[in-house]
Amino acid sequence: MRNFNENTITDAVLDRVGGAELPRAKQISEALIRHLHAFVREIRPTQREWEQGIEFLTRTGHMCNDKRQEFILLSDTLGVSMLVDAINHGSQSGVTDTTVLGPFFVQAAPQRELGDDISGNMEGEPMLVTGSVATCDGKPIADATIDVWHSDDDGYYDVQQLDKIGDLAMRARFRADAQGRFRFWSIKPAAYPIPHDGPVGEMLEAQGRHPWRPAHVHFMISAPGFEQLVTHVFVAGDKYLDSDVVFGVKDTLIREFVREPPGKAPDGNTLDRPYYHLHYDFGLKQTVAATEV
Amino acid sequence: MRNFNENTITDAVLDRVGGAELPRAKQISEALIRHLHAFVREIRPTQREWEQGIEFLTRTGHMCNDKRQEFILLSDTLGVSMLVDAINHGSQSGVTDTTVLGPFFVQAAPQRELGDDISGNMEGEPMLVTGSVATCDGKPIADATIDVWHSDDDGYYDVQQLDKIGDLAMRARFRADAQGRFRFWSIKPAAYPIPHDGPVGEMLEAQGRHPWRPAHVHFMISAPGFEQLVTHVFVAGDKYLDSDVVFGVKDTLIREFVREPPGKAPDGNTLDRPYYHLHYDFGLKQTVAATEV
Ligand SMILES: [Fe+2]
Ligand SMILES: [Fe+2]
Repeated sequence: MRNFNENTITDAVLDRVGGAELPRAKQISEALIRHLHAFVREIRPTQREWEQGIEFLTRTGHMCNDKRQEFILLSDTLGVSMLVDAINHGSQSGVTDTTVLGPFFVQAAPQRELGDDISGNMEGEPMLVTGSVATCDGKPIADATIDVWHSDDDGYYDVQQLDKIGDLAMRARFRADAQGRFRFWSIKPAAYPIPHDGPVGEMLEAQGRHPWRPAHVHFMISAPGFEQLVTHVFVAGDKYLDSDVVFGVKDTLIREFVREPPGKAPDGNTLDRPYYHLHYDFGLKQTVAATEV
Repeated sequence: MRNFNENTITDAVLDRVGGAELPRAKQISEALIRHLHAFVREIRPTQREWEQGIEFLTRTGHMCNDKRQEFILLSDTLGVSMLVDAINHGSQSGVTDTTVLGPFFVQAAPQRELGDDISGNMEGEPMLVTGSVATCDGKPIADATIDVWHSDDDGYYDVQQLDKIGDLAMRARFRADAQGRFRFWSIKPAAYPIPHDGPVGEMLEAQGRHPWRPAHVHFMISAPGFEQLVTHVFVAGDKYLDSDVVFGVKDTLIREFVREPPGKAPDGNTLDRPYYHLHYDFGLKQTVAATEV
């Protein structure tokens, strides 16, 4: 258990974690050691490069606070978040595809009533969002809980500008009606660069990549007996649909945000200016019943 | 460039970094993506496990400050630091083996004179350290710069207890004499657990590992024309020599810290109590001359 060299160190470290109590802790530790060592063995970092790696991780950690999650950005931009998403959510007929959570979800979003305007007086073009929540075979799911959040007209989320706007906005939690339907007003979101003034931005720069995401509205939908759905709906025609920096776009999640003239909107409100209308019908995946396991 | 699944996402991310300007940035990015995705694909984390991974890295980053480097501890305890060390320093006759830098090195150590007592009045058993610095074929290297640092009698470094002791101690920079010799007094270091009240400590606990390192004195030795040597000398007989939590022990780096009776020490000082004597002769590796590259 001494004198380790490049060829023997990996087995020595694997051996050391062999006594982990939980099988899953052992499995994750062993896989981490093998793949991490294989990475190091392949790139053969100089001491200075190793130091730069330590510094990169440290600065990434220091960038994280209650309004910014740089490690999620790192996971997203390296495709890890979408890989984990793919591993956990296979495609199923009638069930809406999933995509990344992203770093801007807030647990305690304000509960609002169906039909409310959640824009919080942010400036932008009015957007009506309507839709429904159903089972994979189209049966309405009454009272589903629907979290929504999206960026403003300039591509910023509320939590990125709380100093300026004072309160959460373009973000709410709704309860679907007895037919699983929901509707709300807000403003049309814009494409945006992920925060790129930190280590992840430096990485993207070094990799010759832009930091942009196509415009989208986030949805998180929950109902008892169903898997929680985490997804977005993307704006059709956005120029970044084929180069989303976090690899999150799926064709099934793209919809026209239809521009409508002033007048009576589908929810009964009358508008004196044009607005956009997004409609999406979501399908949830039933949780496997205990008896079927 | 959409609709990625578990099988296609990795190539998509690799493709995205293909435009990196620097070949080394491209190489490191590609290797990172491949090995990181292979790790994720092997362990198939749940969303909750992915969140726990993000939290672990975030807390590791938040634990880092100017006195604590949790990411170096993580690298050390996963054997990555010793792997990088092995990659960069092959074994060579007459050249002292290297080992990890560790998280307690301080750039601006106080310059002291040969023979000084650097213990800073810390309590402990007196220790005389003598030695020399030479080329691989034994020619003295005059004026070599020697940084030393070690723990106290309880296993703590100065930087871990600055509030209590007020100033750096058991740490100094020396200049070897014209014959490459050096000598100084301090106190005998103790085995110590690496700081384990943070995420790395939790990891060790989950892996069923103890956090201890065998007692040692750190050396960093530099001289123009030679590779900087980063190493320790370990105390022979220490109970943790075969289970060093950072995998740093090499037989060539173990020495008796010889217990001597009161009386006249080799450096001419007279002691009224027993003391320990460590002697180590270091060999430095010549930098490859430009004409030989
Ligand atoms: Fe977003
Ligand atoms: Fe140490």
